[in-house]
Amino acid sequence: MKSNADRTEVKIAYIGGGSRHWAHHLMSDLALCPLITGQLSLYDLDHAAAANNARIGADIFSRPEARTTFHVAAARTPAQALKGADFVVCSIEPGPTQMRYADLEIPARYGIVQPVGDSTGPGGILRALRSIPIKAAYAHLIMKHCPKAWVINYTNPMTLCTAALYAAEPNIKAFGCCHEVFGTQWFLSHLVKDWFGLAASPDRREIELDIAGVNHFTFATAASWRGNDLFPRLRRMTEQPKWSADHTRVAQQRIGKKQWFSSDKLIALDLLRRFGALGAAGDRHLAEFVPWYLTSERALHRWGVICTPFSWRIKCSRQPRTTKYNHATLTPSGEEGVAQLLALLGLATCDTNINMPNRGQMTDAPLGAIVETNAQIRRDRITPVVARPLPPAVAQLVNRIVSVQQLTLQAAMTGDRELAFEALLLDPLVHLPTDKARRMFDQMLHYTAACLPRALR
Amino acid sequence: MKSNADRTEVKIAYIGGGSRHWAHHLMSDLALCPLITGQLSLYDLDHAAAANNARIGADIFSRPEARTTFHVAAARTPAQALKGADFVVCSIEPGPTQMRYADLEIPARYGIVQPVGDSTGPGGILRALRSIPIKAAYAHLIMKHCPKAWVINYTNPMTLCTAALYAAEPNIKAFGCCHEVFGTQWFLSHLVKDWFGLAASPDRREIELDIAGVNHFTFATAASWRGNDLFPRLRRMTEQPKWSADHTRVAQQRIGKKQWFSSDKLIALDLLRRFGALGAAGDRHLAEFVPWYLTSERALHRWGVICTPFSWRIKCSRQPRTTKYNHATLTPSGEEGVAQLLALLGLATCDTNINMPNRGQMTDAPLGAIVETNAQIRRDRITPVVARPLPPAVAQLVNRIVSVQQLTLQAAMTGDRELAFEALLLDPLVHLPTDKARRMFDQMLHYTAACLPRALR
Amino acid sequence: MKSNADRTEVKIAYIGGGSRHWAHHLMSDLALCPLITGQLSLYDLDHAAAANNARIGADIFSRPEARTTFHVAAARTPAQALKGADFVVCSIEPGPTQMRYADLEIPARYGIVQPVGDSTGPGGILRALRSIPIKAAYAHLIMKHCPKAWVINYTNPMTLCTAALYAAEPNIKAFGCCHEVFGTQWFLSHLVKDWFGLAASPDRREIELDIAGVNHFTFATAASWRGNDLFPRLRRMTEQPKWSADHTRVAQQRIGKKQWFSSDKLIALDLLRRFGALGAAGDRHLAEFVPWYLTSERALHRWGVICTPFSWRIKCSRQPRTTKYNHATLTPSGEEGVAQLLALLGLATCDTNINMPNRGQMTDAPLGAIVETNAQIRRDRITPVVARPLPPAVAQLVNRIVSVQQLTLQAAMTGDRELAFEALLLDPLVHLPTDKARRMFDQMLHYTAACLPRALR
Amino acid sequence: MKSNADRTEVKIAYIGGGSRHWAHHLMSDLALCPLITGQLSLYDLDHAAAANNARIGADIFSRPEARTTFHVAAARTPAQALKGADFVVCSIEPGPTQMRYADLEIPARYGIVQPVGDSTGPGGILRALRSIPIKAAYAHLIMKHCPKAWVINYTNPMTLCTAALYAAEPNIKAFGCCHEVFGTQWFLSHLVKDWFGLAASPDRREIELDIAGVNHFTFATAASWRGNDLFPRLRRMTEQPKWSADHTRVAQQRIGKKQWFSSDKLIALDLLRRFGALGAAGDRHLAEFVPWYLTSERALHRWGVICTPFSWRIKCSRQPRTTKYNHATLTPSGEEGVAQLLALLGLATCDTNINMPNRGQMTDAPLGAIVETNAQIRRDRITPVVARPLPPAVAQLVNRIVSVQQLTLQAAMTGDRELAFEALLLDPLVHLPTDKARRMFDQMLHYTAACLPRALR
Repeated sequence: MKSNADRTEVKIAYIGGGSRHWAHHLMSDLALCPLITGQLSLYDLDHAAAANNARIGADIFSRPEARTTFHVAAARTPAQALKGADFVVCSIEPGPTQMRYADLEIPARYGIVQPVGDSTGPGGILRALRSIPIKAAYAHLIMKHCPKAWVINYTNPMTLCTAALYAAEPNIKAFGCCHEVFGTQWFLSHLVKDWFGLAASPDRREIELDIAGVNHFTFATAASWRGNDLFPRLRRMTEQPKWSADHTRVAQQRIGKKQWFSSDKLIALDLLRRFGALGAAGDRHLAEFVPWYLTSERALHRWGVICTPFSWRIKCSRQPRTTKYNHATLTPSGEEGVAQLLALLGLATCDTNINMPNRGQMTDAPLGAIVETNAQIRRDRITPVVARPLPPAVAQLVNRIVSVQQLTLQAAMTGDRELAFEALLLDPLVHLPTDKARRMFDQMLHYTAACLPRALR
Repeated sequence: MKSNADRTEVKIAYIGGGSRHWAHHLMSDLALCPLITGQLSLYDLDHAAAANNARIGADIFSRPEARTTFHVAAARTPAQALKGADFVVCSIEPGPTQMRYADLEIPARYGIVQPVGDSTGPGGILRALRSIPIKAAYAHLIMKHCPKAWVINYTNPMTLCTAALYAAEPNIKAFGCCHEVFGTQWFLSHLVKDWFGLAASPDRREIELDIAGVNHFTFATAASWRGNDLFPRLRRMTEQPKWSADHTRVAQQRIGKKQWFSSDKLIALDLLRRFGALGAAGDRHLAEFVPWYLTSERALHRWGVICTPFSWRIKCSRQPRTTKYNHATLTPSGEEGVAQLLALLGLATCDTNINMPNRGQMTDAPLGAIVETNAQIRRDRITPVVARPLPPAVAQLVNRIVSVQQLTLQAAMTGDRELAFEALLLDPLVHLPTDKARRMFDQMLHYTAACLPRALR
Repeated sequence: MKSNADRTEVKIAYIGGGSRHWAHHLMSDLALCPLITGQLSLYDLDHAAAANNARIGADIFSRPEARTTFHVAAARTPAQALKGADFVVCSIEPGPTQMRYADLEIPARYGIVQPVGDSTGPGGILRALRSIPIKAAYAHLIMKHCPKAWVINYTNPMTLCTAALYAAEPNIKAFGCCHEVFGTQWFLSHLVKDWFGLAASPDRREIELDIAGVNHFTFATAASWRGNDLFPRLRRMTEQPKWSADHTRVAQQRIGKKQWFSSDKLIALDLLRRFGALGAAGDRHLAEFVPWYLTSERALHRWGVICTPFSWRIKCSRQPRTTKYNHATLTPSGEEGVAQLLALLGLATCDTNINMPNRGQMTDAPLGAIVETNAQIRRDRITPVVARPLPPAVAQLVNRIVSVQQLTLQAAMTGDRELAFEALLLDPLVHLPTDKARRMFDQMLHYTAACLPRALR
Repeated sequence: MKSNADRTEVKIAYIGGGSRHWAHHLMSDLALCPLITGQLSLYDLDHAAAANNARIGADIFSRPEARTTFHVAAARTPAQALKGADFVVCSIEPGPTQMRYADLEIPARYGIVQPVGDSTGPGGILRALRSIPIKAAYAHLIMKHCPKAWVINYTNPMTLCTAALYAAEPNIKAFGCCHEVFGTQWFLSHLVKDWFGLAASPDRREIELDIAGVNHFTFATAASWRGNDLFPRLRRMTEQPKWSADHTRVAQQRIGKKQWFSSDKLIALDLLRRFGALGAAGDRHLAEFVPWYLTSERALHRWGVICTPFSWRIKCSRQPRTTKYNHATLTPSGEEGVAQLLALLGLATCDTNINMPNRGQMTDAPLGAIVETNAQIRRDRITPVVARPLPPAVAQLVNRIVSVQQLTLQAAMTGDRELAFEALLLDPLVHLPTDKARRMFDQMLHYTAACLPRALR
């Protein structure tokens, strides 16, 4: 990158640059940041989608509110996008949405309920088996074309996508970003407003969380606002009828309104009540990492949470792409990507939650496993800060997931079908007889064979 | 102990000396061993039962086949039994058999199937909560009255009973003994007979197993007979219809014949097939440590295994005690207790499987956890030998159990009801919604309140 | 503490409040900070010294440049000083300066050269044996009178004084502060000025160091200024005659001028050259932690470093105390204590180097050992950031010191004279025959018997 | 190997088969063992020496006392010797004896005293740098020609020679054997005779030692004879004048009589006295692993130990080889090699001390490091038994050596001269200024350049 008096010039490569949402978020946030300028190179298997986003980008950077400009173009090859990049953003889909049938519907036939099915559970494991080889291939390309670039992963399964980059190229400078912890901060911020009689909810950054876990199964071991410990208040709150009652009716209303993504943090709070650490991700995600909330779809509704139907996902994927930026004026996305870029450039500092290899920040998990904790982002480095120990039971729950992930990673990297099945058997959502589980597994692999490496088909 | 030209003189204290089976086994084995003599002091809360066994002992040692004599007496107090003992044998029941209703029948109402329910699962946890305080109290008495004695535990839950002794008295010289691994050796020995065309099954000790795990969830990572690797043959065998077919009919016949304890090692072999390590305990036990075999009683029958009914257990407990040794001539029990005593006295050597704190013998488990591996018994010492690493997935399965056990131990030692519930939630057999699980837990504790420390009631 | 619109009110207890330097630094820095106000309570065994400092404090806070005021008073008892304190500052001398004869002169008779002798080596060990019981006693008082206070230790041996606080009271909120790393930053900042042709040396905070080690034996594993890696330049520099030549003449000049504290970082650089990590403390300290620089006083002079004579220390201690603040106007001390207080109060943030128990920040050292790494200071919490791994050889050098410290700590906490001798034998400066070492050790203990716990005398 | 009714037939390859002593020991022990027969193939760079030993072998096996026969032949190539071997014995010299000048005499010029200089210290490190590449090359040949063979290493530096085999070929079945622990058993056996008034010293195998450490720096953490703890007696003994007095005169007499190998275990006992664990190797070796006994040759004499002069080693190497077996009748060597072979063949069992990778047997040392502990040798497997923890100070002393060894191993395997120098600086015998140490190191490498890999010359 070059610096001049005004702005630092950077090249950003976007792998999966035809993305429907993330690319727009990134471009509008870049446009609102006066400190940097340069090129944004969008690469996508679906070149038309990337080209479409390039046009939207041209629109965004020409808006009057734009405080800088970037040259946005669709690249024909990954090499073209990556060459000389200072940053690589990754948000890719491992195969067409139809493949999610295998992730969601086949397990459903065996009684396995998955509200999301993209980060863990049979669906998350299968999606990982498709994604890991792709990520590994990109890792090699990145080390070839731009070995000093920072790589930001946005795709799920977050942990295993980030892990694949490091498994393929141990010296890569990669990390994964997720906004689920931000959601926990906003949830607490709204409560703080009420508890302390404030006029408005404080900024989420004022909610200080000590976090540890793996992505989407992250826990806050402490939460405070301006020195006020929030846990005692949360515990008292969970005893109130409003928070402890059965939310099945709420869930049914949500189904009626197709509010697939809504929830009330009841599962996050149930984890706090049972284990002493607050779930720091959405309930739809948290529910998938333990065996207690998904014994049936009905049982899930008790917590006000509903499953996102496969049919809806397919419908969405078939909607025509938007051809323009969908806000009247440039609007901050609420994501942190650009803030992180600035910090890595030395133009700001950023303390946030990050998915990275465990270098000691989480003594409860094995070294090298990709974990989610707080970290400092500074000029050209990201340093994790040491997390408090998890309560022992939570540490065991997290480590079970780490094991499933490590088996899945190794299975995908070495093409070991039996190991992949071991991962599946260890997953908390699988309590099928082993031969039945095997039938399900074989059907899932068969359905997505076209997107799997030969050895796993 | 004293040694004279002929025989070494020892005092053995037997806690739970009214035991129906173990005490008889021990006395007949002692009677057949010419190398030692001395006293056997039987203590039992049920003094009449101990006195009855003392009479049976007098009979046993007066038989013409007896090669030594022991003075057998029922002690009035634990102190009387323990004072000056060289060895302490423990086999106690934590409360009347009726209490097992809470271990077995209450979970059954919630759909939890437990063929045995005494070493793990909700039943094993509850039984542990009753047993641990008793064991801890005995540990203190032992360190007071016979601190140099070796303590042999025979009761279930084996791991947690042994763990309680060490938690209460870290310098105690205790270990747990279990014959389940012997069963695996006999199973293989019979196969060896067929495979190698032998006239008779070789002695089980010729089957060399490298084992690791926790009691009743132990795995053989290697098995050989006279240098012949038995695993390839076992794997081929599991593919034969006889071994892979549904054994539901066998199970039903077993129910008809009340053969509660029979099984065919199909689960042990399924674990080998799925994970590469052979289950080295009975299928009734193995099934309880993972979520796949007990999704329903019907699902269990597929493996030819059936549940021991609570009603049968109650019936047994109400049968009048036998008042004499129930063999025509003195018969070796097949247990190893006396062989272990001799080794500890320096009169023989004994290499066997032992439950002891992990001092490095099992790198897959935390130091200090009670694990089951091979060990050398020599004069006044037991030295574990280092086990091969478990396959990673098996290591995770075992560590999950270790966590449940450590939470249970701490809950019982500190009287922490919430921690006990955390243990229950982590158990592989529990996939109930958390509030339902809590109702079950409260009912279980309530039922056995009389046998629980105040804080846990 | 109370907050009002203007200033946060705090109480600071100063143990060793008769201190000649640190107390003055603290008071002038406080006076220059407009954000806080309150009381400073000085406790010292030498009450007159504390009272003298209280008078100096009154002077400082009445200066026209003072931007706040503190009520400064000498306390009659530790309890009086500690009661209700928000912060406790500790800088104490374990016994009269004459005791340092045993630390320095007795080892010298056995050929052991110690330029400082207060943090490691025979002198540091003996000083630790005197200090640890005192620190442990204060830890108990602190937990009694102000359990929520943050405790800042400034005295040497830093590591063991901080360790003693935690050994006595595991829940204490203590940390140790040292400016030696700042010195390394200033050293590099001056080089940066030359290398990059700057008009002035940048602020030391612009020099980013990744550090790890134990206090006074800390290493920078990376150093950069605005993204420029400084290590290649440093390596090249060490090859230049100016930096590689024998500095014996420089040393002799320093002796002549009584410049005991001057040095040129030649040892810090020699460590970089030999092991790949830059020593991040003064050469006088670094030299004491390895066996190579102190084979004779002459050998030390080769590096331009000289020993501070015991006689000079005695002379200093006999000089009358200054009775007033020794600057014309209030001058920032360059220390960070007040910045750290502000950060702990939530009034600022502070990222700095800290001595704290290893919670994972330094994977090369055992958990719980007091290590020096970077950390984030935020409202009511200090979170270490994960350090890069040390080069393996450096990790071994550091761990050797950690072992010596752990043996010393245990020896002092349990009054185990033999263990203290084991610590001494393991120290890198001791290569005497064991019986000779024992004579020296006995003489050292004998000399300072009056300041030692009975068991160690 | 083949078994027939009478004897098991094996092929043994002997690398370094021209050996002056070990080969004779092995052949006479084989001749006295009626259970096995077969071929012994001797390979040596010095073919004439191997051929000479083959002739001696023919003599040995034709003696009337021989209870079996082996066909002994000198091989022309390593491949010829190794092909089809069941066992590989390694005892090689890394270069001509003249090279030992660099190991011994060059360090001596810098004041470094080394009584043996072949397992640690500058001499041991240099010898390791010459040996490791040779061993690594043989490891590859072994895995090519006889991958199932057990490999027994007899050469020093034992730890690093064994480590090199595993570093080159992780699946090799190798272990190192050393009789120094036997010497400790004999030493105690003689004391037992006196202490218990026996007619004769008991067999060394009756002395039960719990051992842990690295070869030649092994410690007994417990010692007993028939259940009698020997440590209290040893401690009392060390206080008697005979054992505590200065043995300089004894040393001088030994020099006069050229008794280079004699000693009185005073250093082994001094370690027991100072650290609570008995050194379980000869004093000549033990002295080299810590800094206290070798501060001068004079200081060493205090313990009755003397240095083996380089000149004497050269003289020995120039003596003509014996051309016949040097006993009138076949005599057991006292070594255990043949007993170990029998155990690996399943024809006996053998519990002994072994040098092997740490798989958990020594919790004080890193996994994978070659450590010396007790082990069980059984049919086709060697299983280490778990050692008691070392006293913390001893653990640190041992780990320091482990670090030196790991750096040396990596330096030799990767040809990293700087890393080799780091190893040297960390060695306990090196307390030279770093530039002086570097001069010595360069001279040492230069002298033995012909025997070093190019990168290290």
